[in-house]
Amino acid sequence: MIRVGSGFDVHAYDAAAPLRLAGLDWPGEPGLSGHSDGDAVCHAVVDALLSAAGLGDIGELVGVDEPDTEGAASTGFVRLARERLTAAGWEPVNVSVQIVGNRPRFSARRAEAQLAMSELVGAPVSLAATTTDHLGFTGRGEGLAVIATALIQQA
Amino acid sequence: MIRVGSGFDVHAYDAAAPLRLAGLDWPGEPGLSGHSDGDAVCHAVVDALLSAAGLGDIGELVGVDEPDTEGAASTGFVRLARERLTAAGWEPVNVSVQIVGNRPRFSARRAEAQLAMSELVGAPVSLAATTTDHLGFTGRGEGLAVIATALIQQA
Amino acid sequence: MIRVGSGFDVHAYDAAAPLRLAGLDWPGEPGLSGHSDGDAVCHAVVDALLSAAGLGDIGELVGVDEPDTEGAASTGFVRLARERLTAAGWEPVNVSVQIVGNRPRFSARRAEAQLAMSELVGAPVSLAATTTDHLGFTGRGEGLAVIATALIQQA
Repeated sequence: MIRVGSGFDVHAYDAAAPLRLAGLDWPGEPGLSGHSDGDAVCHAVVDALLSAAGLGDIGELVGVDEPDTEGAASTGFVRLARERLTAAGWEPVNVSVQIVGNRPRFSARRAEAQLAMSELVGAPVSLAATTTDHLGFTGRGEGLAVIATALIQQA
Repeated sequence: MIRVGSGFDVHAYDAAAPLRLAGLDWPGEPGLSGHSDGDAVCHAVVDALLSAAGLGDIGELVGVDEPDTEGAASTGFVRLARERLTAAGWEPVNVSVQIVGNRPRFSARRAEAQLAMSELVGAPVSLAATTTDHLGFTGRGEGLAVIATALIQQA
Repeated sequence: MIRVGSGFDVHAYDAAAPLRLAGLDWPGEPGLSGHSDGDAVCHAVVDALLSAAGLGDIGELVGVDEPDTEGAASTGFVRLARERLTAAGWEPVNVSVQIVGNRPRFSARRAEAQLAMSELVGAPVSLAATTTDHLGFTGRGEGLAVIATALIQQA
């Protein structure tokens, strides 16, 4: 028994905020707006995992607009999603993530970010970053988009 | 034998039209433009299923600009795609759908929509909706985008 | 052992360049800008395959900004990605590709393009093209986006 899930998340940049992305801190890079820490990689991964398992989405999981998730570390949302999958008899096989946007400069820290995310998910997480040739809101540097695709199987 | 497929569809809002989405009527929500009923969820699901099976796309399946599909219920397109898969020896495993846009307010009817789509597809369909933080055409409320990812297997 | 991967690529149109897409020449269609031949289908397929296998991305594979890839045929990048997968013990199962944009007129040459890409990848590649209802940078005819989803298995 195997299932696929996809997740998508967009956050606008907020230069005044610190950047949290893929479970890492990125000093010197523009941050992302958001009620939690704005980690769009974690959010898309959570949605992909929950969707694959038919367990709803991140809004139902953690109540993204509620007081107790204000400024919350999104890594905790990934751990929580994994617990829900485990409870429902599923385990992640792998997750593939495409980060779309001009910043941060990603490739130098890819290995570190993949390690952090793979540990959180409990399965291999591949991360790649691309730009949109100056087109659209990502190309104009207004925000960051993340596409995640997950495969899960019965534990 | 297992295969993956992805589908993508965008429709502009047409406030004068009734909204059909994920096989449901949404009274009071802005509709989607389109030659058929504009149900972008059904369209993306059809494309994901056909692509996984190597059976072309929705344009080949139903002739989206032809007289006999004007105003047609897109749920019929999903049934037709499933028939083509069956005839080719494939069956859906699951489909994961991300709806990207400001409207409709989706979460309150998620369970109902998932049930309708799962019945049409003959396998679990997960539906989630997200916004793009006021960015891009979805963020400006100009239209709705839908990403679908399907897994199929030999029947 | 099976894994999923996704890839995404965007190129702006460059009417002065010849179009290379999905491994084919498209005389009379507007080209795509890029350091290589700008074949966004090949690029997204490479990223999907590499991501599924946890082997990095196209930037690491071929150094997309380096002198020796200037004007390079992107079909060679697909061959190279496949070699890397083989060396790591993986083989493609199938790849599903969605081309998003106003041009080229794709459907008449779908079969030919699928054949070219399937031969390069060594597994079935499904190609479909869609537009975005005049919305966003693809709808305004500024550029082309490509979404690829790949399934791979242990060889």
